[in-house]
Parts: sequence; structure tokens; C-alpha cells
Amino acid sequence: MITKIDHLGIAVRSLDEAIPLWEKLLGTTCERIEEVPSQKVRTAFFAVGEAHVELLEATAEDSPIARYIEKNGEGVQHVAFATTDLVEELAKAKADGIRLIDEVPRPGAGGKDIAFLHPKSTRGVLTEFCAPNH
Amino acid sequence: MITKIDHLGIAVRSLDEAIPLWEKLLGTTCERIEEVPSQKVRTAFFAVGEAHVELLEATAEDSPIARYIEKNGEGVQHVAFATTDLVEELAKAKADGIRLIDEVPRPGAGGKDIAFLHPKSTRGVLTEFCAPNH
Repeated sequence: MITKIDHLGIAVRSLDEAIPLWEKLLGTTCERIEEVPSQKVRTAFFAVGEAHVELLEATAEDSPIARYIEKNGEGVQHVAFATTDLVEELAKAKADGIRLIDEVPRPGAGGKDIAFLHPKSTRGVLTEFCAPNH
Repeated sequence: MITKIDHLGIAVRSLDEAIPLWEKLLGTTCERIEEVPSQKVRTAFFAVGEAHVELLEATAEDSPIARYIEKNGEGVQHVAFATTDLVEELAKAKADGIRLIDEVPRPGAGGKDIAFLHPKSTRGVLTEFCAPNH
């Protein structure tokens, strides 16, 4: 089951420049910075109600975030929904004809298991399902 | 004060096609459909935790949503944050050097007052502040 928006992933050129902006916008301080080497990104999290804003900075030229910015500029790169059972949710999406990028959950930031759905199946919205890992 | 993500605004070519997709993705039925003539859009809302997903379909060729899709294709068009005091939040943003699209709140969908910040001031993220209207 989908329980909430877990986070919004926002692609930025520079965390050093984007963090002060989002601290102003949200009126809160950055909660933590975390590097995810497997995704070649550095992330900064801001708590907003039950969700987070996650700023994403590329750490390599072939990072998905670098490619996103090259094509689209800075902006909302993905939307993540929290699930009660990630494996079950992926099976359900697949049965509904939705193409998966990740057939099997993999580790993401914040000690979560994550999986992406293909934006071609979701009308252009790169969608992530996530759950606390076991 | 910003209290939560209020909704995600997703630009779609057709509500008729996008609603069944999002009903599958979120495992919930569309809560309501509402037309906002001032914005030349028809919107469909889905509850997700404390927030909503808002699908936006253009009702005219010069709708902001038609222009967004022409430039970017379908996808996340804006992010809205709930505020406890919209006028105060706009004054604060302006004092912080953020450019406003709406200097004064105006009526949006769902009986809310809304105001947009300029994406040039928010690193590409079209950001809305909103509050229940009085």
C-alpha cells in the first residue's frame, strides 16, 4: 500500500548554492547530507511535514543527476512514495502493465530500500517506491 | 510557517488517460475533478497521506499547462507547500530576495488561496505556497 509522499527529489547543480535557498524557502535547516556512491550523488534532506525535500547533486559526469540537468536543467527529478511492502507494490505495478527500472529493490539514501518505475510508463514522472529496509 | 507538502502538480495531456494510471499507481480512486477557469485547467485530485497528487489538464491552448507540456512534455509542473499564513510567507520570501509571480494571494483549486514563486528564483522548481482561504 502507498502511505504518503516520502520525498521529492530535486536535481541541483550545487548543494552549496541550493541548500541556503531551500533553508529560506522552507524556513528550516538542512537535516543531513549523505553521499550515495552507487547513484553518484550527494543528497541534502529537509523535513517538511511527513515528507522530505531531497536535493541531489551529481558527483560524477555520468551520474543520472548530471544527465538529467544536461537535458532538463535543474528541477524536480523524481517523486518517491512510501510503501508498506515494496516487493508487493512492485509486483502489483508490474501486473498493472507498468514498466520497472528496478525489478528488485536496492539500497537508497536514508537506510531505505528503493525501486524506480520507468517514466515512459508513468507519463513522464520518474516515480520511486520506497520502504524502510529490514 | 511551512507545514507540509500540500500537493504535487503534474501536467498531463489527458485526464481521461492519466486518472486510471494514477489510480493504479497510488492504489486509490480519484477524489474529485475540478475546473479552475482562471488558470484554464481541469484538475483531478488524489489523496496520498497528508498531501495530494493534482493532475492538471489544459482547457485552452494558452493555458500555462499547455505551454508547459509543449516545452517539457508531461511531468511534475509545480510543487505546493502549505503555509500557516500565506501573506506573511510571501513577505518573508520577498525579503529573502525571492521573486514572486503572485505578489498577492489569489483563489486556487480546493477553496485555497495560492501564490506562485518565480522558478528563476527557485532554481527551476515552480513553487506554490497555499493556505485555506478565509
